[in-house]
Parts: sequence; structure tokens; C-alpha cells
Amino acid sequence: MRTAEMMQTYPAEINLDRDLLARTVDALVACAQACTACADACLSEDMVADLRTCIRTDLDCADICEVTARVLSRHTGYDANITRAQVQACMQACKSCGDECEAHAGHHEHCRICAEACRACEQACAELLAAIG
Amino acid sequence: MRTAEMMQTYPAEINLDRDLLARTVDALVACAQACTACADACLSEDMVADLRTCIRTDLDCADICEVTARVLSRHTGYDANITRAQVQACMQACKSCGDECEAHAGHHEHCRICAEACRACEQACAELLAAIG
Amino acid sequence: MRTAEMMQTYPAEINLDRDLLARTVDALVACAQACTACADACLSEDMVADLRTCIRTDLDCADICEVTARVLSRHTGYDANITRAQVQACMQACKSCGDECEAHAGHHEHCRICAEACRACEQACAELLAAIG
Amino acid sequence: MRTAEMMQTYPAEINLDRDLLARTVDALVACAQACTACADACLSEDMVADLRTCIRTDLDCADICEVTARVLSRHTGYDANITRAQVQACMQACKSCGDECEAHAGHHEHCRICAEACRACEQACAELLAAIG
Repeated sequence: MRTAEMMQTYPAEINLDRDLLARTVDALVACAQACTACADACLSEDMVADLRTCIRTDLDCADICEVTARVLSRHTGYDANITRAQVQACMQACKSCGDECEAHAGHHEHCRICAEACRACEQACAELLAAIG
Repeated sequence: MRTAEMMQTYPAEINLDRDLLARTVDALVACAQACTACADACLSEDMVADLRTCIRTDLDCADICEVTARVLSRHTGYDANITRAQVQACMQACKSCGDECEAHAGHHEHCRICAEACRACEQACAELLAAIG
Repeated sequence: MRTAEMMQTYPAEINLDRDLLARTVDALVACAQACTACADACLSEDMVADLRTCIRTDLDCADICEVTARVLSRHTGYDANITRAQVQACMQACKSCGDECEAHAGHHEHCRICAEACRACEQACAELLAAIG
Repeated sequence: MRTAEMMQTYPAEINLDRDLLARTVDALVACAQACTACADACLSEDMVADLRTCIRTDLDCADICEVTARVLSRHTGYDANITRAQVQACMQACKSCGDECEAHAGHHEHCRICAEACRACEQACAELLAAIG
């Protein structure tokens, strides 16, 4: 990821701490990929019928994290209201997906790793949200 | 769009009113496309330098509406918390983008139409949010 | 959808026929939504284990159609090479997904409708590809 | 990124070399983020009017890389035809965007870094394409 490097070259003010922002974007992008991969791994399990909710939550969380990373990668015309609301939605998605994956972590390594990615992302979003105010 | 038709064929319960859901998805998808097109039209205007905030807000709103439409198109493993938070974020994006585009509606037809799409989408999201509770 | 209306307000030249472009964008957006909904409906079926390939192809086709619609909604700095390659990839996704859903059309109405959306989208992409040259 | 780790936990066969796949997904995700950030940085430059094509190509390349990463993150129901066509489209997007950003690399550090990300991604896609056959 070249997130921090790109942020350093932004030609105008950035309204939030650049290190925190870059760290959050990286956590979001890693979580989105983990969720996409986890949904697909669940789909290949013998017990796929028991993993329906997990697959669905993975798909939502992947979509929401990806879009939140995009919003946080833009600094021009910053609108705290949009950023705050989208980061809040993302925290909720990471919480729900982390809970769901954690429930299967004992049986499926992909759920265990994905739960970790969700927790790390939820935590990064919480720190950013505190900074947005 | 075949949203309503697809919804009628869903093989399990749907936790929200199907007509309202389908209407909201269609409003989201139309708003996302209008915002993508408006960002690009603004980029081609002579006065592009005055439209930076409008372009940025268009991009955010397009991304957020698209993802919200995806979340609302899934009914398996429904999680009211994710849906509610994402619809709230989307309402905020539509409000900000509608305000921004409306400010340029007198000069740019694409902003006028895009503002209308944002208002319609914000309204649909508000009705859905009331139904989610 | 306000695709055609937005296209009429674009302030510069558009390198392709506007009616054809707008029709294709609308077909792509409708196909993307149908594929997202079909993946989720398949996930709720009792026989979900037999629908793994269908779910996966639906997810790919939804993603690819959505992005192709975005590329075709932008006219500034038109690059025929990107457009052509992305539309070709989209035709392939629609063909694969149409074939897969058609195979289940007798058992699942959502697959039947989704296959129709894929065929319509593949056809629109083919016409656009001929126009791109 | 936890791409390689997630891939190791996939419960079935993967039709392509896992290291190559994971490396490509990581290159795609990094390129997508760089392109999103570069589009936004260009939008903030004084000379934004001269960067229209760069912004547009950045947006296309971000969208296409993101979706290609998703397709490559799924292994269930592998369809070589979709993967091949989407990776080809992505190589074209990375080539066009790399060329465009390289032309501004002397003036804008964000374009220089983004061009590097595009070249690395194009190279990774070329290696993967050779493996797909």
C-alpha cells in the first residue's frame, strides 16, 4: 500500500491527522479484501448452509469498507458530515461481521482471520471518529 | 430495472415492505448513476476549478448510494443495525450532494438534474429508515 | 434512471452515440442489480450447495457490470482502449452468468429473470462494442 | 493486507499459483487506492483544468483494479474466461493510467507515485495472465 506516501503529496490541507487517516484506510482495505475472501471461502465449505448469515455479512462489510476507504482517500471539499456518517456505518458493519465470523472462528481459519481484520478495522474507525468529533 | 420482479422471487421472508425496498433501491441506483455522470460533466466545464467540491461530493455520493443499493438488495441474514447505519450515511451523502448541486443548478443542467436525483433518493431513504425503526 | 437526460447535458463532445450509450448503461445497471439479488436469493435456497457456482458468477457479474456502467458514464478524456477492453470483459461475464443462471431457470424464477438481464446486457455491450470499433 | 494468509485457508483447490494470486491482488488493491488518491490530488491542483484526462483515467483505473481484485479473491466456481478478460481489461487500464500519470510525474509527486503503482500492477497482471493461459 502506498497510502501514506500518497497522502504526503496531497497539495492542500488535510483536515485530519495524516498518519491516522492512512492507517485507517489501510485497515479498511485489508478488511474489505479479507471479507471478500471469507465470503468465498464460506461458500466452498461443506456446511455452506450454516454459513449463510456469515456470507451475507461478509459481503456487506466488504462493500462498506471499500467505499469508506474511498471516502477517506479524498480530501478535496472535505465534508465532516459525510465522513462521520460513513465511518459510523462502517464501524457497525465491522462489529456485526466481526461478531459473526468470531462465532465460527473455532471451525474455520478464514473466519478467525477475517474476525481479526474486522476488529482491527472497527478499532481504527473508532479512533478516526474520535478525531472527526 | 428488474428490482421489484427480483424481490418477488426471493425464496424466504423479507423483513421490510417489498415495494418500499424496491423503490428505494431504484432511487439509489438512479442517484448513483446521476452523481457519476455529474462529476464527469463538472470535470468538463470551463469553470472546473469552481466545481471541485461538487465533483468530490458527487464521487462520494455515487459510491455510497451504490453500496447502499447492494446492502438493500440482500435479504438473507438481515441485520437491521448495518442497514440502518448505512441508510443514515446515505441520507447524509444525498443531502450534502443535493445541497452542493443545487447551488450550481442555475448554471449547469447536470447539477440541476443530479440535485433532483439526490433529493428523491434522500426522501426514499428517509421513508425506509422510518420503516426500519 | 436519468441516464439519457444526464447525457444530454454533458458540456462537451461524446465520442459514441448517446442513445446507444445510455441504453447500455441502463442495461448494465439493471443487470448488476439483478445479479446481486440473484446471488442473495440463491444463498437462501435449500439447495444452496448446488448453487455455489451460480452465486460466485452472479457476484463477479454484478461487480463487473457496475464498473462498466461507471466507465461508460464518463466522457471526459475518453480512452477507446480502456472502454473496449472493459466492455469485452463485461460481455464475457454476462455470457458466463447468463449460461449459469439459464441452467437453473427451470427451478428458480430469480435465475430465469437474472439470465434475461444478463442476455439483454450482453447484447447491449455487443452493439456498443461494434460502435467503438 | 492479509491476502496470502486468507488464501492459505481456502478450503478447496485454487486453480492458480497462490503466491502469484496474492501478490497480484495486493498490487491491484494498492493501485486502486493510489488512483483514487491521485484523482483527488489532481482535483486540488491549481492547474486542475490541465489534469482532466488524468483525473478521469485515475477514476477508471481505480474502479477497474478494485473489481479485478475482487474477482481474483474468489476461487469458488472459477471461470477462466471471466478472469482472463477482466485481467486483460485491467492491464489496459493500468497501462493507460500509467502513461497518463507518467506524463505529469515531473510536476506532481502524486502522479509519479501513482504511475509506479500502475506499472507494478500492470506487470503483476501480465504475469498472472501468462499463468491463466
